[in-house]
Amino acid sequence: MKTFSNPSVAIVGATGAVGTTMLSILEERVFPISDLRLIASSRSVGNVIETTWGSIVVEDLDTVDPAGVDIALFSAGGARSLEYAPHFASAGASVIDNSSAFRMDDTVPLVVAQVNDEAIRSHEGIIANPNCTTMVIMMAAGPLHAAAGLRTMFATSYQSVSGSGHTGIAQLASEIDHFDSQRSNLVTGGWDEPDGDLYTRPIAYNVLPLAGSIAVVGYTDEEWKLVNESRKILDRDDIAVEPTCVRVPVMDGHGISASMWFDRRVDLDEAVAVLGSAPGMQLWDDTKVPTPLDSAGIDDILVGRLRETIGFPGGISLFAIGDNLRKGAALNAVQLAELLLA
Amino acid sequence: MKTFSNPSVAIVGATGAVGTTMLSILEERVFPISDLRLIASSRSVGNVIETTWGSIVVEDLDTVDPAGVDIALFSAGGARSLEYAPHFASAGASVIDNSSAFRMDDTVPLVVAQVNDEAIRSHEGIIANPNCTTMVIMMAAGPLHAAAGLRTMFATSYQSVSGSGHTGIAQLASEIDHFDSQRSNLVTGGWDEPDGDLYTRPIAYNVLPLAGSIAVVGYTDEEWKLVNESRKILDRDDIAVEPTCVRVPVMDGHGISASMWFDRRVDLDEAVAVLGSAPGMQLWDDTKVPTPLDSAGIDDILVGRLRETIGFPGGISLFAIGDNLRKGAALNAVQLAELLLA
Repeated sequence: MKTFSNPSVAIVGATGAVGTTMLSILEERVFPISDLRLIASSRSVGNVIETTWGSIVVEDLDTVDPAGVDIALFSAGGARSLEYAPHFASAGASVIDNSSAFRMDDTVPLVVAQVNDEAIRSHEGIIANPNCTTMVIMMAAGPLHAAAGLRTMFATSYQSVSGSGHTGIAQLASEIDHFDSQRSNLVTGGWDEPDGDLYTRPIAYNVLPLAGSIAVVGYTDEEWKLVNESRKILDRDDIAVEPTCVRVPVMDGHGISASMWFDRRVDLDEAVAVLGSAPGMQLWDDTKVPTPLDSAGIDDILVGRLRETIGFPGGISLFAIGDNLRKGAALNAVQLAELLLA
Repeated sequence: MKTFSNPSVAIVGATGAVGTTMLSILEERVFPISDLRLIASSRSVGNVIETTWGSIVVEDLDTVDPAGVDIALFSAGGARSLEYAPHFASAGASVIDNSSAFRMDDTVPLVVAQVNDEAIRSHEGIIANPNCTTMVIMMAAGPLHAAAGLRTMFATSYQSVSGSGHTGIAQLASEIDHFDSQRSNLVTGGWDEPDGDLYTRPIAYNVLPLAGSIAVVGYTDEEWKLVNESRKILDRDDIAVEPTCVRVPVMDGHGISASMWFDRRVDLDEAVAVLGSAPGMQLWDDTKVPTPLDSAGIDDILVGRLRETIGFPGGISLFAIGDNLRKGAALNAVQLAELLLA
């Protein structure tokens, strides 16, 4: 694996919600960068962004020359990754791609930093950053899997609107304003539909029990990511996953309610021992239940409601929450970039 | 079972969120009432409430004489039910109690109208109205159980603040206002804690993965209700239930994501046939995903995301949503009262 001591770094999709978080995290962590390039679609081209590496003019993805880029952090959507990531990789860059484009490609490692770091070593130019919901629950499932072998996982999500980028945040805010004058109608019925078609239904004061788009046999693409990415990250093809992905009116922070069973019984003491010492995670007890608001802006995944299963004894239930823009996306990408440092 | 043709009806807890909904529903359904009495705790005593049965002065629960009441609808909290419901029952009233006080009492039937109506016939003066979350999922689980025998249910809830009454609705509204000027901090962190101690953590723009209070082995009272009430309603003691109860920033309407397995395989066609013809329910396909906002103010339970399980084939996953103030509480109580009509 090619490593770098003072790389040239490019952020592709630099003005999006994840891209701007990538830049913040590179700054916070004082990532060693010889030259930073910010690249976006034509809408943002020419904008000047102030960084600790100086004022940087946003370049146009459609015309950019990737020569000289050592590490490229992509978060510009699946279609742009499919088109441009191989172009950057063949020009010599190690691409860390936040889209779903390459995640299930056998030649592309899918890596949760602090869970399956070693997988990165086999990369051939492109490394995939997992789905934000999968990432959060893998931070808890990974250490338990390492200890006892994960066989079964029920995962039900509470996904924030920042998972849909700046437009998701703006949509929730505008709908909250829209409903300000008709809050009592939210109880009795008779509310007016807000504007906007980002989601199929209103998201303010609501729950959308369908996140993503229906893909196969009634499950959404988001739900299939929980199935397939979990198996690839944990390197076990026969993990049984029952996924449900739901959008909730939260600005930032994805929560996952999960029940897990393993190759052998795992009791509460063992789960506390494993998760209490797992990296990148805070285990909170029931006197201090973690919430998405607590996760916003921090790096650690928060895990709470840890308990032994009661319907089928021998397993563990828990609630995991993480900042989907940070560990769910930008932070993990930067952590993967750090694994590429010499 | 004693029945009535034109009963004297009392609402105990008449000024609460459920009590006022009970009154609305009695009016909507033109319930035959010879004499309506509205009873509450001392705070509301003396208030005059306009009804289709005339202007009624609210009476004081502490001093009221229950003589002459035929049907008493109680929704004044568990402690008041424990104290006053037996008093009303021994004075001759048939009590329909919305609290948890008597639900697991062997001499008290626990009835979801249109699911286990026949259970009401054995009552000895008190009939229990199930928990609002359990009620909603039982409307979907009941018909499937009747067809195939429910063995296993994973249930993860998305519970609205109206489940905490008027104060829950007011708390969410005030927190939404509190966060108006600091919405960007909800993404980056650094928000100020809102006032109020109804919940342990803020509820606006947040998810509280602990609804109710921790009871036994790390599960909340709300979660144990899903276990124990489901078994009693479906009259099967060995149903394995894995429950997780979560509060979400929704004004009204409880959602439950559930996966269920039965004594035999149930496929999608059968589930569609069973639920498509079940009473009190609308089955929506994936082109029109039901949400809590759609359920507010209506009587039917909405069921969507119906699909065959993929982790352990042979079962059914679905998302059920219902107005917790109506079918989850007041409507079911009135439907039970209708079963007492001659």
